[in-house]
This record gives sequence, structure tokens and C-alpha cells, in this order.
Amino acid sequence: MKDLQGILHEIADLVAPLCRQGEVASYIPSLGEVSPDNFGMCVAMADGSIYGAGDWRTPFSIQSISKVFSLALVMSYDYESIWKRVFREPSGTPFNSMIQLEADRGIPRNPFINAGALVVTDRLLTLTGDAAGSVRGLLRSESGNASIDIDAVVAASEADHGHRNASMAHLLASYGNLENPVDLVLENYFKQCAMEMNCEDLAKASLFLARQGVSAGGSPFLSPNQSKRVNAVMLTCGTYDAAGEFAYRVGLPGKSGVGGGIVAIIPGRCSITVWGPALGPNGNSVAGIAALDAFTSRTGWSIF
Amino acid sequence: MKDLQGILHEIADLVAPLCRQGEVASYIPSLGEVSPDNFGMCVAMADGSIYGAGDWRTPFSIQSISKVFSLALVMSYDYESIWKRVFREPSGTPFNSMIQLEADRGIPRNPFINAGALVVTDRLLTLTGDAAGSVRGLLRSESGNASIDIDAVVAASEADHGHRNASMAHLLASYGNLENPVDLVLENYFKQCAMEMNCEDLAKASLFLARQGVSAGGSPFLSPNQSKRVNAVMLTCGTYDAAGEFAYRVGLPGKSGVGGGIVAIIPGRCSITVWGPALGPNGNSVAGIAALDAFTSRTGWSIF
Amino acid sequence: MKDLQGILHEIADLVAPLCRQGEVASYIPSLGEVSPDNFGMCVAMADGSIYGAGDWRTPFSIQSISKVFSLALVMSYDYESIWKRVFREPSGTPFNSMIQLEADRGIPRNPFINAGALVVTDRLLTLTGDAAGSVRGLLRSESGNASIDIDAVVAASEADHGHRNASMAHLLASYGNLENPVDLVLENYFKQCAMEMNCEDLAKASLFLARQGVSAGGSPFLSPNQSKRVNAVMLTCGTYDAAGEFAYRVGLPGKSGVGGGIVAIIPGRCSITVWGPALGPNGNSVAGIAALDAFTSRTGWSIF
Amino acid sequence: MKDLQGILHEIADLVAPLCRQGEVASYIPSLGEVSPDNFGMCVAMADGSIYGAGDWRTPFSIQSISKVFSLALVMSYDYESIWKRVFREPSGTPFNSMIQLEADRGIPRNPFINAGALVVTDRLLTLTGDAAGSVRGLLRSESGNASIDIDAVVAASEADHGHRNASMAHLLASYGNLENPVDLVLENYFKQCAMEMNCEDLAKASLFLARQGVSAGGSPFLSPNQSKRVNAVMLTCGTYDAAGEFAYRVGLPGKSGVGGGIVAIIPGRCSITVWGPALGPNGNSVAGIAALDAFTSRTGWSIF
Repeated sequence: MKDLQGILHEIADLVAPLCRQGEVASYIPSLGEVSPDNFGMCVAMADGSIYGAGDWRTPFSIQSISKVFSLALVMSYDYESIWKRVFREPSGTPFNSMIQLEADRGIPRNPFINAGALVVTDRLLTLTGDAAGSVRGLLRSESGNASIDIDAVVAASEADHGHRNASMAHLLASYGNLENPVDLVLENYFKQCAMEMNCEDLAKASLFLARQGVSAGGSPFLSPNQSKRVNAVMLTCGTYDAAGEFAYRVGLPGKSGVGGGIVAIIPGRCSITVWGPALGPNGNSVAGIAALDAFTSRTGWSIF
Repeated sequence: MKDLQGILHEIADLVAPLCRQGEVASYIPSLGEVSPDNFGMCVAMADGSIYGAGDWRTPFSIQSISKVFSLALVMSYDYESIWKRVFREPSGTPFNSMIQLEADRGIPRNPFINAGALVVTDRLLTLTGDAAGSVRGLLRSESGNASIDIDAVVAASEADHGHRNASMAHLLASYGNLENPVDLVLENYFKQCAMEMNCEDLAKASLFLARQGVSAGGSPFLSPNQSKRVNAVMLTCGTYDAAGEFAYRVGLPGKSGVGGGIVAIIPGRCSITVWGPALGPNGNSVAGIAALDAFTSRTGWSIF
Repeated sequence: MKDLQGILHEIADLVAPLCRQGEVASYIPSLGEVSPDNFGMCVAMADGSIYGAGDWRTPFSIQSISKVFSLALVMSYDYESIWKRVFREPSGTPFNSMIQLEADRGIPRNPFINAGALVVTDRLLTLTGDAAGSVRGLLRSESGNASIDIDAVVAASEADHGHRNASMAHLLASYGNLENPVDLVLENYFKQCAMEMNCEDLAKASLFLARQGVSAGGSPFLSPNQSKRVNAVMLTCGTYDAAGEFAYRVGLPGKSGVGGGIVAIIPGRCSITVWGPALGPNGNSVAGIAALDAFTSRTGWSIF
Repeated sequence: MKDLQGILHEIADLVAPLCRQGEVASYIPSLGEVSPDNFGMCVAMADGSIYGAGDWRTPFSIQSISKVFSLALVMSYDYESIWKRVFREPSGTPFNSMIQLEADRGIPRNPFINAGALVVTDRLLTLTGDAAGSVRGLLRSESGNASIDIDAVVAASEADHGHRNASMAHLLASYGNLENPVDLVLENYFKQCAMEMNCEDLAKASLFLARQGVSAGGSPFLSPNQSKRVNAVMLTCGTYDAAGEFAYRVGLPGKSGVGGGIVAIIPGRCSITVWGPALGPNGNSVAGIAALDAFTSRTGWSIF
């Protein structure tokens, strides 16, 4: 195997031509303005060493990747009780579908589709009084970067274009599956998704999932069993209705966001972040998935 | 860690009280006659050593576990072309649902639901002229047991009660997604599912998936990449619409059958088979899943 | 045929034992408090003569029956353009389902399911500036009863328990199918449904549909063609997903509400109202449907 | 009103330009070979007088229109028991959908979608021993044309291209909703659909539905109540998932077939047949619906 740094540079060159395939998310203006030519990648090894390539220090909107951190926080406080309010099965349908939510009487299929993430945010709000603030606190402490913050323009813009999420939150409420007022849950959800980070900070912040739950400070944030289970949910549900495809091609637990970022975990070894704003039909970064595919092929690292 | 043999005996004792939870499949008489008190477990290590407990040498009907072998065979001949005719996404719905098949215009969600397995069997029939015979040949050569065979009573009984599979096969044919006559595909499919094996033979026969595709004879049956990909599909799709639950609790690639068997793989380490005839609401062995859960907890072996 | 008044008295006796079959709607307290023992029936003949029995002068909440009047108003202003925003097909699913709304990209199946009625109310709001007020105005002028009004307690209660309608309105808005703010549309919708009327006033107010659109004052409110078409939509879509059953048993255009009222029309002859608060599984009055069934059997009046 | 014969000639001229809109059904060769330029129309008055225009004496394949006659026959023998095996609700989905059939556990939505018609044919087979022969017998006796027969080429062709209907029949059988062998039910169904008739014979054969069930010979074939109910089912379910649209535009009970024919009934007055082979997106004759629309507009005849 070549040195890791060399592999990352090769991959950045390799996927550059793919950056214009797919479409940058444009449902809110601030996301739509990001250039599709950005590409960044970072690997944080379990021992703390860091490798990066391309635009790996350019901040972007982490969007749905935040759902991993809110789930981890809820599990750290409250372990298993969240699973009474959300399933952990792949959805088999597009990421914002309300069809299953109705068929399943208000219990979302998993915590990584929007409906499920709203339930997790609601629970975190009950547990901490400030869901978005708790997520920000975790991201700051794990990455060691105290300047990580919510992009207020993005958060406000999400709220302005948030009819679909509002619809979902009201539907959850109609089934009695929200503990807090709809508007407060939505506000926290939009803020949490609007967190701005770069590949480096995101790889560091996710590293606890590659270290059996041990935090950057060395103390257990999650138990080994909890960490393993968050990874299992990422593998089966982390990339919307392309989870099977992602497992087949990349073969790692991963979570994507419409900002074009993806986090993947190799348990015991490293966390990996990629960022490429243009998305394929399932809402995952085209360049990002290709980069992860190339990375596992070249390193031979896999969980299978 | 205790010695492996001791762990298996402990688990057999542990799950014995669960054997009467759930229901033995009874849609055909020969399955319904099996006693729910049976429980067997076997671990085949990559180095060839074997550990067993309980009724691990009592034969049972492997049913849908056969789908792993027919998929592996098709991939060994023909690598990727099968994926034009079947997706590899979790179904999110019960294992025999025709709803998605129609919504997806005749392309089954994955090769492990019945519709997808019919397509794989059809392809194997085209490639070999005898799909059930090919599966049997693979099972015999990998297990080293030349007496493994189709239970003709079960196969005939499946055909007699096979209106639902016949319905699915005709629907596939109506979308042009079968190459061979409906009756011939069904006959091969029923035979392949009616293969009778015990835990030991099944663990041995599955071991190539824990050895990067290397067969019992030491030659490559699948490439490392193909083997990894079969495992990925097992993880996301191997236990019907409980794949997320199985990943969460057990954390391993696995494939279950309505005969009560389950095969699980720890890549690089071992294959594991369990057998307990009583099934939970999703069609997976209740005692079997509990045994696998206990096994990963006690050994600490996991892919996450 | 017996005299009409006698038939109504007979029917009131006949259906009395049915009043305790089914369940009074209880999703808001003010509806749940109504006694199921109420039963009223009124026939308004095209020539203006009126026949009534039972509690035909006791006011009740007309709920979804209001949808007939909002649709008629929109058609009177604007004839056909509403059909770009709502289909006129039976839904085939329960009356508050969001599944079809999503599958059909925000175009409700018909104007008598909640989603479709929200679109009609939205359109009426644009056309008149006060949708609920317009409906009230029509009800007053056609019935000749200027005291008909919105029950403010019911309207407020609907809003308090309105997460599901709010969810639907936001979903419509996410597809661009609302012209006015979500909250304003909901307020008008809840008020319009909270109109309180008795069988007599409701029969008089509906009579224009039995007189080819001619209003109580003798002037054309709808054209004959429009009147015929409102009746056609009532027949195919007026009783939620029991429209086929209603057509089979009663054989008349009809519209029901969860307050237990039903309006039916015999074009050219009369309008009929029944009221019995206990609802069957499809949300239609059990006693009411039985009464209409008996009425058409005894009079022989039918459109088929 | 002009004289009826004149109206029919006018309509034939009016819809001629529409004959090339839409597509002739081509799933079997013999249907695909019919020229779209054909157009025929016939009105049979309750008093026995007949009016025709265009190709009203050219035979065509009646296809799904046969479902009206098989339903009427079953009801004539056995009145209500068929409704335990088939619902009478509009389907809300395309005419050959299996989705609802599975969701409803093998009970078809209504007798006029394919699945429901298979159940009716199965029942008729049990009652008479020869379902297709019984339908033919009824068509011959009511039309007075003893040469009406099955087009054997069409029937064979349907069987050759019948995977979808075979799929549906096996699905019905898997739910225990067929009394006879799948192949026998399919054979009778294909034959019944392959009946060849012209507009005149078809209008005469349907006339009992406009005469409260009284047959051509003057004896009661159906009771007035049964006749009324067949008409009700035609209105809500007779034109696949365009039943609401048909009721809105035409306002009559009607049943269409993919051969391009439509039968409509004005109870108490007449039966009307139209034929134009080119179909719109919902599988109904484009010229035929336009002709019926024009007919009700010009005569003012309507049930609403």
C-alpha cells in the first residue's frame, strides 16, 4: 500500500472530473451558491494522525450528517428508550417520504431520515433543553475547534423553505410522537443541520465511532456497544434509499448530507470525510462516493 | 474469552427456553412437522477448525439460505450483469411483497427477497442449464459432504403451495425479467430451497465468504471483491425487513430461512450457523437471533 | 307509495335501534359530547315543501358537508380552473390519507377529502377574501335562516387538535399548491367545518343541487351543467372511501360529515338530510346511511 | 331537441378528428391491427327503437365490457354472495394494479378491475360450469343475434400474453379466493373478453340495465334492485381510475374495454354504445368519451 497521504492526493485528482456530475442542492439559496468544483477529503486515524487533500479545510454545511451526532448524544444520555419512538430499519423510499410515516402510524423508519431525526432532536431537546446547542458543543469538543457554529443564514433559509419538514413534524405531533412544540423542534432541527464545518473538523469529531465510543479527551462518550450500534444504523440507513448501493460499493458505515459531505467509519482504524457538493439522484455526493469507493479499493480496508 | 466450545454450550443452554417462542413455519406440512425444541449451532473457523453444540448435526430445510449460494454462483460466472435485473437495496417491506415489484416495474429490490431470488435462479438456469443442481454441487463440494440433496417431499410440497411464488414469477415474466419458462424457473427455485443440510455442513459451505472467496479446495471461487460484496448484500438485505434490527443486535452479515436456519459471517474469521425452527414476526429464527446476539456479545467479535 | 311524512316517521322508528351502533367522533371534545341517540331527517322538495322527522330541528356541526358549499361557491365564481389544482377521482383510501397526496405530487384526489377541501378553501379565500364568511353567507341565504353561524368553540377546538390538517396544509404548500398563508387557510377551513345547522336548514340550503343550480331566490347560482357536475363529484367522492358502497346501497349523490350529518340529492326532485352522530368505520353516520337506504327503497326514487 | 338520428350523425362527424388521438391497444397483435379511424355509435331506446351512426355494425372485441354481463349473470343466480369475495369500491389506481390486491389480502376492489373480474368469472364457472359460454348465451339472447361468438385468435393471443393476468389469478389463489383451477379460470376469462360484437348488438344486449332488469324477451333477468346496483357499480368503477372524470364529463353509468368500446346506460330511457379504438392514458376510448359527452350535452339526458 502506498502512503496514505499519496492515496488521498491521487483520489482528489481522480474524482475531480466527477465534480460536475450531479446537481448541487438548490432548495435553499445558500446551498445552491456553493461551487460544485470543491472537493475535499480527510482521514483521521484512531491514533490521532490526520491526512487531508483538496478543499479539506473549506467549511461547508453538514446538514444531515448532524443526525449522527444528535443520535449519539441521545444514546449517551438515555441509551435505548429512543427506540420506542423510532425504528432502525432501512426506509426503502426517498429520504423525505411521508408515506411510510403514515403507514407506520407516526413511528419513523430510522433516525437518519428526516422524520426520525425530528424525533431524535425532540428527545434531545427534552433531555438537554437545547438540542442544537448540545450538538454544537459535541462537535466543538470532539474536533477541538471552538469556533464551529451554526450558519444563521442557512438556518433561517431552511425555516423559510421548510414546509415539508413542518408537514412531517405536524404529522408526528398528530400521532403523539413529539414531546415539545412543533415550532421549537423545527427551530432546533434547522439549526443543527446548518452547522458549518470542514472535512478535518468533521473527521476528528466522528473519530469516537472508530474508537469504540472513546472521546477526544480519552473518556468514554459512548459504550463500545453503543458505538457499534450507531455504526450499524449508519451502515443500513445512513445514505437514504441508497444504503444497499453504498454498502455494496463502499462497504463502510457512512452518513451523507445534502451539503455534499459524507462521513464514513472504519471501526478500530479511522474516520473518513469527503465533500463534493454535486449530488446524485439519491441525494448523496457523486464525487464523495467515488472517492470512498477508490479509497477502500486502494487501501483494501473494509469491514467485509 | 472462554474457549469457543464452552461458549457454544453456554449459548445452547441460554436459548433453550426461547425455542417455544415464535411459530414454526407451517405453510407446507413437512416444515410444520419439525419440533420447535431443536436447537443447533456451529462455528467454522477460517483455519478449518469446527465447533458445534446442540442439534448441530441434525439436517433441516435450508430454504432461503440457498439464495446466498445461487447469488454467489451467478457472480462467479458473470460478475456484475445480474445487477441490471435486480437491485441491491433493502426492501423495507415483508419478504414476499409484490407491491415494490410492481412499483419498480419488475426489478426486484434485492436478490434475497423471493422475487429477486427467482431472477437469480433464472439467470443461473441460463448459465448452467440446471440451477438447483449447480447449487447442490457447490454445497457438496464446499462442505465435503457428497450426500447433501434436495428433499423431494419438501420440493413437491412447495410447488403444491406455490401460488404466491407463481404469481411473482408471472409478474416478473410480464415485465420481461425472466429468460426461461415460468414453470422451469419455479421448479428449480423450489428444489434449491428444499436442500436439506445440518449446521456443520452449512457452516463449512459458507466459509468461503469468511475467506475472501477462497473455496474449501484452496482455489478462488469468488474474488475478494465479490466475496466482500455478497457479505454487504447479506448485511443490508439478508433478514427480510428486519435487516436493520439484525445489524443493530448482531452486527454481522447474515441470511435466514423459514426452516429456522441462519448463516452469519465474520469476514476473515469464521462462519456461524444456528438453527431453531420457531420464527418471529419477520420470519427469522427467534432462538437463532438470540444465539447470534449472545455469541457476538461474549466473543466481542463484530464488524463494527 | 305512502305519504312522505309517514315514510319519514317510519324510518325514524326503524333506525332508532342503530343509533348506538358505531362511534361518535371524539377527536375534539365538543363533538364527543353529542348524544348518539339523536336522529333527525328532512326532505326538501323542489317545489319548496318540507317534511321532517325526529330531531330534525336540532343543530349539529356540519363538518365536511361544508365542502359541498365551498366547492359550489368556487365553481360559481371560477368554473373550471380549480380542476388544475385538485383531481376529481375517488381516493380509494381513508379520508385523511397523505399517501396519495405525496404520490400525486401535491394534487389532492378530489375536493371532498381534506387535502382537496383545503385547496378549495384556499381558492375561495383568494376569490372572496373570506372563505368561511362566504360559505356562511351562502348557507344563510339559501336556507333563509340568518342566524346560522360558526360554533366558535368547535372551530377553536379543531385548531387545537389540527396537527394532521396542518401537516397536510404544509405538504400542499411544499408543492406550491396553496395561494395563501398556511395559518389563514387552516383558520378558514376550521371555521367553515364548524358551521352549526339543523336538518331543515341544511336540506333547504342544498336544494339548489336538486334544481339545476337555481337558488332559493329563483336566480341561477350555478348553471345546470355545474350543478350536475357537483352532483357527479358527490356521487363518486362524497362519502370518503365508502363511495362505492354508498352508491350501491343508496344510489344517490351524497356528502357526509363526522358530525353525523349526510346530505343526499335526487336531481329534479328533492334534497334529503339525515343526522345520527354515531359513525361507522368509514366515518359515515350508521343510522344516516340506513335511513337513506330505507328512504330510496320505500319511495323507489333513484337515479339508477 | 333534434331528432336522435340526426344527433348521432352530427356526433360521428364531430369526433372523427379525435380518432387519431390516443393509442390503439397493442399488447396483443389482433387488437393492434384495428384501424383507429373506425367510429360507431348506437342508441337502443327502452321501447326497442334503434338508432346508429358510423361503423355501428362493424364487429370489435368487447374485452372488459364483458365484465358487466358476467357480473349480471352471477347476480341473477346468486344475488349478494359474490360481495364476500370482491369489494365494490373505486380502485383509485390503474386497472391492472396488484398493489391493492395485496394490501386488501386478496379481495379485489371491485368486479370491473381485472382481479375482480377473475373472481366473478370463477364464481360463474362454479355456478354454470361454463363461464364464457354463459356470457355468450346471454349476449346472443339479449341481442337476438345467434351468431355472436368468441374470436378464437384473440382468446389464444390473450393467453399467450397473459402473464399479468396469470400473476393475478395465482395471487387470488394464494389468498384462497378462487374456487376453480387457475388455468380454467384464465381460459374462461380470456374467452369472455374475446367476444366479438358490433355497437348495435351490444346496445341491445345491455338494454336490460335501462329497463330495470327486464330481458329482451320481457321476463325479469335481474330484479329492479339488482339492475339499479349494477348501474351503481358501473358509475363508480366502470372506467378504471377515470371513473370520477367519466362521471363528471358524461354523468352516466358506463363500462369501457380496451377494444375501444364503451357501454353507457340512462336508466329508464336507453342504452348507448360507442366504439373508437384509440385509447387515452386511462385505457378508455378517446372518441368514445367525447361522443358520450356530446350526446348528453345535446340531449340534456343525465342522471344528475
